[in-house]
Amino acid sequence: MHALVTGGAGFIGSHLCDRLLSMGYRVTAIDNLHLGKMQNIAHLASNSAFAFQLIDMLDAEAMEALFKTDRPDCVFHLAANSDIAAGNDDASLDLKLNQLTTTTLLDIMRRHDVKRLFFASTSAVFGEADGRIHEDFGPLQPISFYGASKLAAEAYLSVYAHSFGIRTLVLRFPNVIGERSTHGAIYDFIRKLKDDPTRLPVLGNGRQTKPYLYVGDLVDAILFAWDRSEGNYAVFHAAGIGETSVRDMAEIVVSKVSPAATIEYGSSDRGWLGDVPRFSYDTGRLEQLGWVPKRTSTEAVEYAVERILTNGF
Amino acid sequence: MHALVTGGAGFIGSHLCDRLLSMGYRVTAIDNLHLGKMQNIAHLASNSAFAFQLIDMLDAEAMEALFKTDRPDCVFHLAANSDIAAGNDDASLDLKLNQLTTTTLLDIMRRHDVKRLFFASTSAVFGEADGRIHEDFGPLQPISFYGASKLAAEAYLSVYAHSFGIRTLVLRFPNVIGERSTHGAIYDFIRKLKDDPTRLPVLGNGRQTKPYLYVGDLVDAILFAWDRSEGNYAVFHAAGIGETSVRDMAEIVVSKVSPAATIEYGSSDRGWLGDVPRFSYDTGRLEQLGWVPKRTSTEAVEYAVERILTNGF
Repeated sequence: MHALVTGGAGFIGSHLCDRLLSMGYRVTAIDNLHLGKMQNIAHLASNSAFAFQLIDMLDAEAMEALFKTDRPDCVFHLAANSDIAAGNDDASLDLKLNQLTTTTLLDIMRRHDVKRLFFASTSAVFGEADGRIHEDFGPLQPISFYGASKLAAEAYLSVYAHSFGIRTLVLRFPNVIGERSTHGAIYDFIRKLKDDPTRLPVLGNGRQTKPYLYVGDLVDAILFAWDRSEGNYAVFHAAGIGETSVRDMAEIVVSKVSPAATIEYGSSDRGWLGDVPRFSYDTGRLEQLGWVPKRTSTEAVEYAVERILTNGF
Repeated sequence: MHALVTGGAGFIGSHLCDRLLSMGYRVTAIDNLHLGKMQNIAHLASNSAFAFQLIDMLDAEAMEALFKTDRPDCVFHLAANSDIAAGNDDASLDLKLNQLTTTTLLDIMRRHDVKRLFFASTSAVFGEADGRIHEDFGPLQPISFYGASKLAAEAYLSVYAHSFGIRTLVLRFPNVIGERSTHGAIYDFIRKLKDDPTRLPVLGNGRQTKPYLYVGDLVDAILFAWDRSEGNYAVFHAAGIGETSVRDMAEIVVSKVSPAATIEYGSSDRGWLGDVPRFSYDTGRLEQLGWVPKRTSTEAVEYAVERILTNGF
């Protein structure tokens, strides 16, 4: 089986390449290196089952040439701008990197008769919705361009799945953490403490509470659903067990990096525009297939911090 | 109150201009005349409260100039490609005319501090979903580029409403019928019978069943919700009472246009790619505000056919 991984030099994409190769896949990774880094896949350079191409997915000619020569059997589409705050500064960024990469890909997959697709979506499609939202329910009212662009991409995936037969698996990611991440609270906290080990200033009041998932456990969930989902269009949610507050996360990082540091909280209920103060969603569809998360949300935070401190970002 | 009506020379937009003017609004209509026609607003040319500008909404400079000089208080955004079959032949058409017109408008409204917006959405965001779908629920799985582009537009409207304070009313239209329409089954049937009064060939098996609403009743619903909806982001559905099959519609048109004609059905359960065989959705939120549809779906079909035969398309 030959898989194309878009965003393959990125945080989650590079972990997925590792796993697919270990399962015996042949893997072609593409990335525009907007957030991806060559160092994330440097260890794969000598693997004959792996190839990397620096491609901008919006370059339809380059994508066309890739599909013509590389002929993948399936595509894992993880290329995206995943930095919500950066996306809010420039509305066209998420439109291009999250939605238009997807529609360009779908058009090419349709023309080249490539019939299986995984798409990395996000809990941000729900905005500030309350409660444990079912995979098929809303309200779908994003509050960030990131969430809007991923929901827009989902809308087009639905059309190509239902009307053009591209079998599509959508997994809405929670907050994913681990080594090779480029941003997010853990990354931010560790960097701040390296700069000044005496204090940790935290954006917001620390009461934001979210489900976190370690990147290796997310890759488990992707491939678990990939093997078992049925039908032309399937939407899943994945998360660890429970949730973790920013306050708990700050205390975990401080305890492991600089136990004497003072944590200084802000006053806002959110860290940045488009940040959601509290979020949890229903992961029942994945669990009904037999998936059991390996770690609680807080165990995932502890494990991710340890991995980053051992292996670097 | 000064309203900007986008798609103001179109089918529904021109009816809305008529109504707003009769209510005492000052109205600026813009249209790229893709589906809109000058004849739809020719009767307004001498009305001093009405102005028309031929503008492509994707021309950000022209839109900027319009907002600078015209300074509307609110916007009714109806500009769109509403021809589902045409959209499926060229995926970029709906992306541009339905989604990117919306995001261009939102950006300009934000910068010019225009804080009230109506958006014409569609039941097509639901694809082939079963049952009477609540305004906040899904599944939102469009099967046409038209449905996808409108859902994508909704995603961005949510962000500007929740994060940038543009108070937004979304009304998801059912199948809207009446004079000045440019396509759809009634239009198609009348034209076919004018060409050949002896027979009416119907796309599909005629069993597709949908809720129809007369355009004047839709304009009632728009302004009813506009006056009464609360909150920064409100989504409503509107429909007449009940549904009408294509078979019933064909029989109504034949009885009024050419009673001796033979109706010839196809074998498919849908008229074209992206057509939904059966659809009904929950209009409870609008009804809870006190809205009562004037006509059943089938009465709306009869009334629309009479109006078109009397007044022309």
